[in-house]
Amino acid sequence: MKQTFSTYIDSLQDRITSKLEEVDGMGRFQKDNWERPGGGGGQTRVIENGGVFEKGGVNVSKVYGTLPETMQKHLKVQHGRFFACGISLVLHPKNPLVPTVHANFRYFELYDEDNHIVDQWFGGGIDLTPYYVFEQDIKHFHRTCKSVCDAHDSTFYATYKEKCDTYFWNTHRNEARGVGGLFFDYCRATEGKTVSQWYDFVTAVGDSFLDAYIPIVTRRKDTPFNDQNRQWQEIRRGRYVEFNLIHDKGTLFGLRTQGRIESILMSLPPVVQWKYNISPAEGSEEERLERVLKTPIDWIKD
Amino acid sequence: MKQTFSTYIDSLQDRITSKLEEVDGMGRFQKDNWERPGGGGGQTRVIENGGVFEKGGVNVSKVYGTLPETMQKHLKVQHGRFFACGISLVLHPKNPLVPTVHANFRYFELYDEDNHIVDQWFGGGIDLTPYYVFEQDIKHFHRTCKSVCDAHDSTFYATYKEKCDTYFWNTHRNEARGVGGLFFDYCRATEGKTVSQWYDFVTAVGDSFLDAYIPIVTRRKDTPFNDQNRQWQEIRRGRYVEFNLIHDKGTLFGLRTQGRIESILMSLPPVVQWKYNISPAEGSEEERLERVLKTPIDWIKD
Repeated sequence: MKQTFSTYIDSLQDRITSKLEEVDGMGRFQKDNWERPGGGGGQTRVIENGGVFEKGGVNVSKVYGTLPETMQKHLKVQHGRFFACGISLVLHPKNPLVPTVHANFRYFELYDEDNHIVDQWFGGGIDLTPYYVFEQDIKHFHRTCKSVCDAHDSTFYATYKEKCDTYFWNTHRNEARGVGGLFFDYCRATEGKTVSQWYDFVTAVGDSFLDAYIPIVTRRKDTPFNDQNRQWQEIRRGRYVEFNLIHDKGTLFGLRTQGRIESILMSLPPVVQWKYNISPAEGSEEERLERVLKTPIDWIKD
Repeated sequence: MKQTFSTYIDSLQDRITSKLEEVDGMGRFQKDNWERPGGGGGQTRVIENGGVFEKGGVNVSKVYGTLPETMQKHLKVQHGRFFACGISLVLHPKNPLVPTVHANFRYFELYDEDNHIVDQWFGGGIDLTPYYVFEQDIKHFHRTCKSVCDAHDSTFYATYKEKCDTYFWNTHRNEARGVGGLFFDYCRATEGKTVSQWYDFVTAVGDSFLDAYIPIVTRRKDTPFNDQNRQWQEIRRGRYVEFNLIHDKGTLFGLRTQGRIESILMSLPPVVQWKYNISPAEGSEEERLERVLKTPIDWIKD
């Protein structure tokens, strides 16, 4: 499975970056191979100042070694020999009418003293962070999520949509980071599917990423915007930074396991503003976004 | 002491904001009174888009109530009735040649069931975060710190300078946030001084803030700078955000005790950039800063 999923994420990285370059029309992904001192490494692919994408990364990492003690406690394991691999992507478009997107698909193995697998699971998800609310876009994103889920289990969409809303919650602001999508973790053989069925599900979600996101980009990328839209985007990006640095477990895991800083923090937006006590005008599109982020919405209904 | 220090921080807030307005020449501090649902409140004073200061806050808070359980465990107390007051300031100048500065002076009381004080202590400090290295400025800042320390205890400067270097360390980058200053905490009656002697020391450091910082601002604020300097400042401000959101105990304390978000996060810079894998040219002034931040320096020597 380690080999199978490793191969899958490499091929997904290729497919996603070449499609994104095609849509961008101008930018090219810069490839950086890196090694992790404790074991393993990865390939970071970053696009900056493209035609559509102001900044983005589509990164693969495959790391192994011994978990730091804090992580061993957290996972309640004795030995802490591990292997982890995954693909992680974040795209920050230039045009404030195009949403930011994030996706991550990962696989984890834990070993005993004799190097036998004692646990193995998948995790990941996909979620959208718009700066302006276009119901058409958000519904398309969620419908794509639902249809890939439904092909595997009729309970998955509702369950993982809710987990996503719960996970990407900026508790200190009492609002969602974005409009959600799917979030799943610890998908292991004791959870009603075999490891191979979980593989099928997770890779199906991975395969659906471009279908979920690209039509939205294509529809909005050439829509004109003004300085006020751009300022709002930069301010909202601040909330994205706050979530990633204060709450995001993936970021904290990376920092604790001495991951490659520049690959982990590639998720941070290119230009961000923090203004004091911003409050959008009543009835404005900006206020509408704030309202939408206050309570999770069922985007499939009607 | 509660009353005495409360009065002191109010007066220090007035003195500091009026001097900063005078130096700024254009901006005015906007005053916001706020109340904390659990007890107490404060006054936030924010300056934005001034002549010298792009963003800054000089905030007083006086809060009381019951500590959340996590804080009770952290402080190893049973009851957790507390009072805390302090002044906290951060200034982000527009000109990249003028350093960012941070200062904080606080006082804490803990009570038993009968509302008797069971513990009381001061904490705080003052530290400088330049974007370009002017030894003259950094030495002036540290000499001011040392001279106020020496008047109270000949060991203080060395001790609190080192604590400052240790505290403002971005572990995930393996570099200092800035060039340090003073950092002290748990200054209580068991630590070789009476509560009243600690008060004298902490307020002396508070009184020295303008002497430590204003001459630097005056010397640099009108020096011309270019887009490259500005870009470097915005990138380095990203490290400031990383420290405050990932490591800073004051920020985390504020978020955990349901402090006022906009007052806590006033410390974040107005405009910030994250670029992938930035590395300044060899021999450049930007590289010089990076070198200076790699190992704490004795700024008093020679």
